[in-house]
Amino acid sequence: MTRVVAKFGGTSVGSVERIRHSAGLVADAVRRGESLAVVVSAMVGETDRILGLAGVFGAGLGDAEADVALAAGEQVSSALMALALREAGFEARSFQGWQLPVVTDGPPGASRIAGMDVSALEAAMQAGVIPVLAGFQGITSQGEIRTLGRGGTDLSAAALAAALGARCDIYTDVDGVYTTDPRIEPAARRLDAISHDEMLELAAQGAKVLQTRSVEFAKSRGVPMRVLSSFLEAGESRGTDVVETQDIAERRIVSGVAYARDQARIALLGASNRSELAARTFAILADAEIGVDMIVQAHTRTPGRVNIEFSVAHRDLARAQAALEAGLSGADISSETGLAKVSIVGAGLRQRADIARSLFAVLGEQGISVRVLATSEIKISALIDNDAVERAVRALHTAYGLERV
Amino acid sequence: MTRVVAKFGGTSVGSVERIRHSAGLVADAVRRGESLAVVVSAMVGETDRILGLAGVFGAGLGDAEADVALAAGEQVSSALMALALREAGFEARSFQGWQLPVVTDGPPGASRIAGMDVSALEAAMQAGVIPVLAGFQGITSQGEIRTLGRGGTDLSAAALAAALGARCDIYTDVDGVYTTDPRIEPAARRLDAISHDEMLELAAQGAKVLQTRSVEFAKSRGVPMRVLSSFLEAGESRGTDVVETQDIAERRIVSGVAYARDQARIALLGASNRSELAARTFAILADAEIGVDMIVQAHTRTPGRVNIEFSVAHRDLARAQAALEAGLSGADISSETGLAKVSIVGAGLRQRADIARSLFAVLGEQGISVRVLATSEIKISALIDNDAVERAVRALHTAYGLERV
Repeated sequence: MTRVVAKFGGTSVGSVERIRHSAGLVADAVRRGESLAVVVSAMVGETDRILGLAGVFGAGLGDAEADVALAAGEQVSSALMALALREAGFEARSFQGWQLPVVTDGPPGASRIAGMDVSALEAAMQAGVIPVLAGFQGITSQGEIRTLGRGGTDLSAAALAAALGARCDIYTDVDGVYTTDPRIEPAARRLDAISHDEMLELAAQGAKVLQTRSVEFAKSRGVPMRVLSSFLEAGESRGTDVVETQDIAERRIVSGVAYARDQARIALLGASNRSELAARTFAILADAEIGVDMIVQAHTRTPGRVNIEFSVAHRDLARAQAALEAGLSGADISSETGLAKVSIVGAGLRQRADIARSLFAVLGEQGISVRVLATSEIKISALIDNDAVERAVRALHTAYGLERV
Repeated sequence: MTRVVAKFGGTSVGSVERIRHSAGLVADAVRRGESLAVVVSAMVGETDRILGLAGVFGAGLGDAEADVALAAGEQVSSALMALALREAGFEARSFQGWQLPVVTDGPPGASRIAGMDVSALEAAMQAGVIPVLAGFQGITSQGEIRTLGRGGTDLSAAALAAALGARCDIYTDVDGVYTTDPRIEPAARRLDAISHDEMLELAAQGAKVLQTRSVEFAKSRGVPMRVLSSFLEAGESRGTDVVETQDIAERRIVSGVAYARDQARIALLGASNRSELAARTFAILADAEIGVDMIVQAHTRTPGRVNIEFSVAHRDLARAQAALEAGLSGADISSETGLAKVSIVGAGLRQRADIARSLFAVLGEQGISVRVLATSEIKISALIDNDAVERAVRALHTAYGLERV
């Protein structure tokens, strides 16, 4: 019997009607002969409501008591899902993180799962009871409630799937992973399968389907995932399988085009090329917990001096500049805003050195200038004007034939 | 150092402003030199909201999953109270029922506290940390979440006070126990002290200050309680002490006048006086979980036959009649609605056989007819017309000199 962990996010349990519909999808899977365990997020809006209450007392994510309050959101939705499954004619029981337990380490608000005892869930499943685990939460070895950070329920589901030897079905508000955002390119196609690596790059480059940590976890433990819509009926869409690279029959060079708006570029002009300066720059930014994305170091006409350029999220720009000005006395720091990042992702890029050149050509034909270009094993990203994002996404989608995938 | 368990109900933690004010009262108590542990209910309205969600799936109080969802309400308020205490400059930490644990037995929605391990709370208090216990909840010995029923947070507080050897301060929306409802009799006076027994009778006869189970528990364990308002500043009112009878210095014959509207009377006319019929009648009502209050059995002019009369809450009348008609074939059952119960309560009634007569006289002067009269050790109740309740309360309050208490 195929074991499946079915995870439902905030919108999929956002109301009693949505919970009932999601319970129906679980019921369909059981009737198909799958053995199910369910993982749920808090009802959409509940996490923000509770954080708002905690915020009045000056506490936010990262405070242990905020974690206690937040975990209550999943407690309610797990109980309601168990009730909905019972209404659908199945035996079901909710489990909280402490009841397994799911043991965490790391700070409040951003803990990681250190271990999980699934014996109670195994026993329930063997007795024909569908267990419904409250996601996003666990307890420390001292018995204190912790949460896993935003999107942590995906991680709970992936970890539970690994422990149960199950596939991990992520039910969300889209019916799979698309070649790009269908709101921008109507010809976008749902992919039947994608590798964990490609999924990770798409998520990192702006696609919002799956949370990066859950995919990393699934990749490291070889857990197959499937992205499905909880807003359709069972069988209306087969979703997208996220699997190991070798399990994908169909070989594509490019699998998707991702984008992220509201990027900014910081340039350190004519900096010394002594490597400790670059190291210091990025150490300063790391200390300030600012994520740095695309980095380019170019030689200038002055021998021994280089330009360092990199992109940050626009919301981090002011903090980044302040930190650099405080930490790098006398550096010539400039910045540019109104930028966006567009990326092509595909396992097939590994062998194709010409892709970067063709990307330049595609964007050039559209009159879109590339500020910074960065490549990794399976991705190429270009920093461009915010205004050009939609044209760039459509042009790249067409150029790499993604409407025929 | 005086140990105090301070319990805050739903209205006392009903908003972030109310939580902050309640935290201020705890802070004042600590500054006075008391050693505090706090117990909280869910924010007012939260329990009904969650029950409403569970109700959509056909689950109500008494369902184990409803208990799981309900307990989340106290989880949120306990964390927020801990944060508010921290904001007020104290170290504080929330504790859920399972973290002590508070061990329960009995059915979901109406469990009782079987035991409580307070070592974690003792350790917190000794380390200068104010523990905030989520009330109303515990776990079974199998680790399943259970709630104690409506008002169960008072019981949590009383049990914690017993375990810690503490006084139990119940903060509510009134500043103590009054001689009667001040909305009916403006001359009503706050009592400085009242016995557990008197408090129990007042609660049973309709006064809504304290939950009966918590007072019974406090009485059985000799826990002193104090009723205080969380809507005043510290010291504005000294509240009412609920203590053992011998600890009350001031002796009064009558301590209070209570009332309950919406009563109904059921009469079984000319029933056989064989005791098994009365026993069967009340067994039928007990099986239907209908609370029977005042019972009178009177001989009729037909030798060997009696009338049995008793009162029930109006909401239970239809069920009671149906159960009796099904269970007592051929009995002559009649009923009367539009009734109310007015009661005088006082430890001093024990020695005063003339009180019943004087109560008849007081009500008679007002032209109020008494349908049924029932006495206990420290209480006399009369079933009267609903319309006469306010006049009866005021007349009795004056007749027994309660405005001078």
